[in-house]
Amino acid sequence: MITIDFEKKGKFGLSEFIYISIKEQILNGKLNANYKLPSKRTFAEHLGVSIITIQNAYNQLICEGYIYSLEKKGYFVTDISLEPSIKQNHKKDVINHVETKKQNVELNKKDEIIIDFTNNSTSVQKFPFNLWAHILRQVLNSSDEKLLQRIDAKGIFELRKAISSYLLEFRNMDVSPEQIIIASGTETLYTILSQLLDEQTIFAVENPGYHKVEKIFRINHKNCYPIQIDEQGIIIQELEKSKAEVVHVCPTHHFPTGIIMPVKRRLELLTWAENSKNHYIIEDDYDSEFRFNGKPLQTLFSYDKNNKVIYINTFSKTLTPSLRISYMILPQQLLDSFNKKLGFYSCTVSAFEQFALANFINQGFFGKHIIRMKNYYRSLRNALIQSLQNSKIAPKIQIKEEDSGLHFLLQIDSIKTKDELQKDLLSKGIKISLLSDFYYPDLTKSDIQQEKIFLINYSGIKKEQIPIFIKKLESVL
Amino acid sequence: MITIDFEKKGKFGLSEFIYISIKEQILNGKLNANYKLPSKRTFAEHLGVSIITIQNAYNQLICEGYIYSLEKKGYFVTDISLEPSIKQNHKKDVINHVETKKQNVELNKKDEIIIDFTNNSTSVQKFPFNLWAHILRQVLNSSDEKLLQRIDAKGIFELRKAISSYLLEFRNMDVSPEQIIIASGTETLYTILSQLLDEQTIFAVENPGYHKVEKIFRINHKNCYPIQIDEQGIIIQELEKSKAEVVHVCPTHHFPTGIIMPVKRRLELLTWAENSKNHYIIEDDYDSEFRFNGKPLQTLFSYDKNNKVIYINTFSKTLTPSLRISYMILPQQLLDSFNKKLGFYSCTVSAFEQFALANFINQGFFGKHIIRMKNYYRSLRNALIQSLQNSKIAPKIQIKEEDSGLHFLLQIDSIKTKDELQKDLLSKGIKISLLSDFYYPDLTKSDIQQEKIFLINYSGIKKEQIPIFIKKLESVL
Repeated sequence: MITIDFEKKGKFGLSEFIYISIKEQILNGKLNANYKLPSKRTFAEHLGVSIITIQNAYNQLICEGYIYSLEKKGYFVTDISLEPSIKQNHKKDVINHVETKKQNVELNKKDEIIIDFTNNSTSVQKFPFNLWAHILRQVLNSSDEKLLQRIDAKGIFELRKAISSYLLEFRNMDVSPEQIIIASGTETLYTILSQLLDEQTIFAVENPGYHKVEKIFRINHKNCYPIQIDEQGIIIQELEKSKAEVVHVCPTHHFPTGIIMPVKRRLELLTWAENSKNHYIIEDDYDSEFRFNGKPLQTLFSYDKNNKVIYINTFSKTLTPSLRISYMILPQQLLDSFNKKLGFYSCTVSAFEQFALANFINQGFFGKHIIRMKNYYRSLRNALIQSLQNSKIAPKIQIKEEDSGLHFLLQIDSIKTKDELQKDLLSKGIKISLLSDFYYPDLTKSDIQQEKIFLINYSGIKKEQIPIFIKKLESVL
Repeated sequence: MITIDFEKKGKFGLSEFIYISIKEQILNGKLNANYKLPSKRTFAEHLGVSIITIQNAYNQLICEGYIYSLEKKGYFVTDISLEPSIKQNHKKDVINHVETKKQNVELNKKDEIIIDFTNNSTSVQKFPFNLWAHILRQVLNSSDEKLLQRIDAKGIFELRKAISSYLLEFRNMDVSPEQIIIASGTETLYTILSQLLDEQTIFAVENPGYHKVEKIFRINHKNCYPIQIDEQGIIIQELEKSKAEVVHVCPTHHFPTGIIMPVKRRLELLTWAENSKNHYIIEDDYDSEFRFNGKPLQTLFSYDKNNKVIYINTFSKTLTPSLRISYMILPQQLLDSFNKKLGFYSCTVSAFEQFALANFINQGFFGKHIIRMKNYYRSLRNALIQSLQNSKIAPKIQIKEEDSGLHFLLQIDSIKTKDELQKDLLSKGIKISLLSDFYYPDLTKSDIQQEKIFLINYSGIKKEQIPIFIKKLESVL
């Protein structure tokens, strides 16, 4: 039986401590690949805890790829060793929907949009306008000289300090304020990285993925290659072939597929980065605060022992995209070159709002706001999914990757093509993206991705719009 | 005698209308080069206005280079025709202080700075904190959905509209909101321009000049050449030789020399731009709101009839640099390519502050704030200059280019070198830049610029610091 030394439990919850203990024993090799873990019931009795406690710990381990379950057989330790022979297993390319040519769906833009599932805006009812105005008033009342002075290139120290404390408390990340760079949106951070890294740096992004990232690297005159993902995330062999030096990934909640990169692929990716001094991984952690079952997953940044991960996060999802505040954490060697090369800049975010956000975090409002928003989004998502499942078209639809984040996938069974479906929905005022919209055209593949999978970006819709959506969807199918 | 048709005066003041009438007659050739204008007294009697009225009109015309005065002879029309033979006259290079090598003044950074003349911050006592908090509260109270939505790449329409109205009312510039791009600081605008223009575009900047501009173009991997200026601004022949396609200038108040580019050089520069479809002029109008005698000068943008000028301005000087709001006006063809190439961006300035600034302008507070700040800076500048002129060291100093803007030049007569003076002042807590700091090293010239000219950037100092500064300066000289 596995040992769990409860004397070291400290401040951790039961479930969390069991999860951590098993994880450590897998990582340090005490538990070997394919080792069969005790059943939930046996283990619960042995430790004198509830079955739910064990289940939560196992779920977290499965989610991060440390263990796997086989139906009616039980739970086993994943083989996370990095031999090349094993690497080949990841080439399955379960997801290889590739478009040969982007088909232009003629969208009649004049149609009035009633429900927009492509919109990233956050809920107006839930934004703490009063509190924000109050905190801004606090900041402005201080009439402090600091409010009007040129802002350090990295941002205001008070905000970097607040983010550093938040990351330690809520994400278990130990980061010095000196490593943190504030900027007006993630887009600005990509441009800063383009300016910071060598002129000839070659970038890679995930395919499918968030096209803006690739666009910004190209606008900054960089070569940037889309790299295919399989069911575990970016395919390392394809990355190696591409000769890319810096790769952009969303390991905790891939956009748009929702895939979580398991620990093994994470370690492989880190190994890839360690193989060359110019290799870096950009970890885009855009919405991992919104994991509905359990705590946010451990970041790739936290696995990294060799200063290879550039961590990026934003307040666009947690507060609002219109605030334009994002940040990144730079590894030491890039930090030195940032200070030397770009230290003359003034930070791109207003000092007033930086101080306000620092106060908002330090006074505990940010933590509370995330909890409130998580509850709100969970309830919105549940209502939407239940309405879909209780609708007349329930047999024709399948919901995927709904576990976390502010979007999920909706697969539709229909005699219509995906483009016809998209067009018909638009003509009824429903704006919605296809999963295939997020693929880069790949001329080496001839099979056209025709799966009818839609991206349901639900953060901006209202609960009362759900019945309207269901009705429209039923009428189209 | 010159005709002034007062029936067309409309809303203009007397002085302004006389200035406009004469300017038009010079531009359309009715008044020839070297035509002798009536004396102030004769003209005043003829028109039935006061001498002061004529004097103000003549001063404005002199300032912009339309007329010149010869002592005891009177006022004459400048030759603004563009024949090459005449162009040669501008090669005098009165200002040709060139450093062969930047000398590293060892500044002891540990010394406590008491007065900082290198600081661009604005006065804390004068920033309208209460009003700003009040307007932000107005904006946030509206809880409008627009506040939380993704912001158009160009910025929020309401702010662009407000700026457009302001420019028409206060600067006589007719600009559509569609042409205006909002960004988080002028630095961001230079990066946007680097991304917008062709990858191979060659840039030029003024020498001496504001080094950040050149730095940002270089960081964006652009070639950028410093071009020498003479007493009228950038030397067109040098610009032509450089093969640069896009040139950055501050025609209305050159930084740091304070030179105003006269109309003739402006027309020459516009002619240079019209000669190639890839040529553009970036007009940086960073502090022309603060002209103490008379209205702000006409912008180069207003002279441009061929869509060759990219106009840039900022709220850093008029409000505060820590707000990070600047804007540019794009000519039509660049606007089309902005929409196509960069239209996917979200604007880099917070929606809350964009709406607040729009309200601040629309409710008339911005116009009033500029008047208040102009009075404040005028009084600060006068107090500083008078204290210098009444000090023991008055015979050893000369004040230059103090007519407008938030800085002037102070030339010092001393047996010490310029670097010794700078170092001695720093050891007494006075941080101050040398004019020579703003020159680019030019290896083709061997004469070292050793003039003891300092840049007095006074916007951030307090009135009560003036006697301390004078005492310290006396003790050093």
